[in-house]
Amino acid sequence: MKKLFVVGIGPGGGKGLTREAEAALDAAEVFCGYPVYIGLLRPMWPDTPALTTPMTRELERCHMALESASKGRTTAMVCSGDAGVYGMAGPVLELSPRYPEVEVEVLPGVTAALGGAALLGAPLMNDFAVVSLSDLLTPWETIEKRLRGAALADFSVCLYNPVSRRRAGHLRRACEILLESKSPETVCGWVKKIGREGQEHRLCTLKELSGEPVDMFTTVFVGNSSTRAVGGRMVTPRGYETK
Amino acid sequence: MKKLFVVGIGPGGGKGLTREAEAALDAAEVFCGYPVYIGLLRPMWPDTPALTTPMTRELERCHMALESASKGRTTAMVCSGDAGVYGMAGPVLELSPRYPEVEVEVLPGVTAALGGAALLGAPLMNDFAVVSLSDLLTPWETIEKRLRGAALADFSVCLYNPVSRRRAGHLRRACEILLESKSPETVCGWVKKIGREGQEHRLCTLKELSGEPVDMFTTVFVGNSSTRAVGGRMVTPRGYETK
Repeated sequence: MKKLFVVGIGPGGGKGLTREAEAALDAAEVFCGYPVYIGLLRPMWPDTPALTTPMTRELERCHMALESASKGRTTAMVCSGDAGVYGMAGPVLELSPRYPEVEVEVLPGVTAALGGAALLGAPLMNDFAVVSLSDLLTPWETIEKRLRGAALADFSVCLYNPVSRRRAGHLRRACEILLESKSPETVCGWVKKIGREGQEHRLCTLKELSGEPVDMFTTVFVGNSSTRAVGGRMVTPRGYETK
Repeated sequence: MKKLFVVGIGPGGGKGLTREAEAALDAAEVFCGYPVYIGLLRPMWPDTPALTTPMTRELERCHMALESASKGRTTAMVCSGDAGVYGMAGPVLELSPRYPEVEVEVLPGVTAALGGAALLGAPLMNDFAVVSLSDLLTPWETIEKRLRGAALADFSVCLYNPVSRRRAGHLRRACEILLESKSPETVCGWVKKIGREGQEHRLCTLKELSGEPVDMFTTVFVGNSSTRAVGGRMVTPRGYETK
């Protein structure tokens, strides 16, 4: 059997790994992935050879992984967080019909929405939406439509890729759209470098959010109309409390 | 230090546990939780005493856990999937100011949206919304508003609690609402008993979904307008493929 695991390693590697992810990484003869994520695994797997490509060369990376597996070497494509949330599970599966001899198995992990939420408190306790502000692969008009829809329907919202060198104004514009239907006092929070050295988090309000020190390693949380700050934590009520 | 861990154990217990969840459960002198979830941990932790309450007695369970920790016994509140997604992290944190001597730490886990997505393929590769169809704690009108908003904005949608004995018609009604703006051919999928004995999954279309054998242990996935079936898997393109 020729096997390719697509593995979510959690937000910071190490302590966020699931048992099945760890077993797959143990079984792998080759790792494939973005160099930073491979680096997170090196303390535990110092010797497994790794195939890497830089950012923006994702499809090439997927071909590399499928090709490696097709040669009979058990391969693990390594993704930060969850393999299926803005990760490599999708493109690997899209390309996999060209490698019918390879069995692809996706192993889920703790994505930044869940890892960040736990550090802030419980912002996603009720219905929520996850939106990436990166317009590299999605037209900006689609992103605006999703932000507007999520705000109008009173979802808690988790924002991935809030800024980058190329899109410094995206978070400010996203806040403007959310403010069309969410209160400026909506409880928000952000988490930086989840599970890694330099981890940081803070609560703020929606009107303050665009002025916060958010960078490309930050995940942002915007509450729904019931979200509250409780003892320094961001908590969206589930409803038990008022029953 | 008086400590309460609120721990997400992943969809099925065992293989979905993260390293930090496992360490917290090792450290715990007492477990607290819904009896089924405690049962999932028994093969690994046969002897840790457990405090349980039946379903609908969630607040009582939270008080129990906080009280246990306040007596100096390191306690772990056990949640299926992720503690912060329809779990116990929220109510525990809401009640925690009454137990200022207890330090609460939330440890995230793989929620059913991620665990189920991995089994189906990669349905959540782009922006997505998570909606519970249970109206025990959320008014049904709010649920309809969120479904409508998510469909209009072309999110992939993951549905929790699609049916129960008391709400057999909810999934059918949810499908009607999603069909107002999503195509009847939209690729959908469902996963039953993720990570547990009797696990099952299947792809279908949105027009077929309400006739599928979905029960209270099922998580349902509705694609966005680009979601495709690729080699028997449900895949939402990220956009690399067309760049």
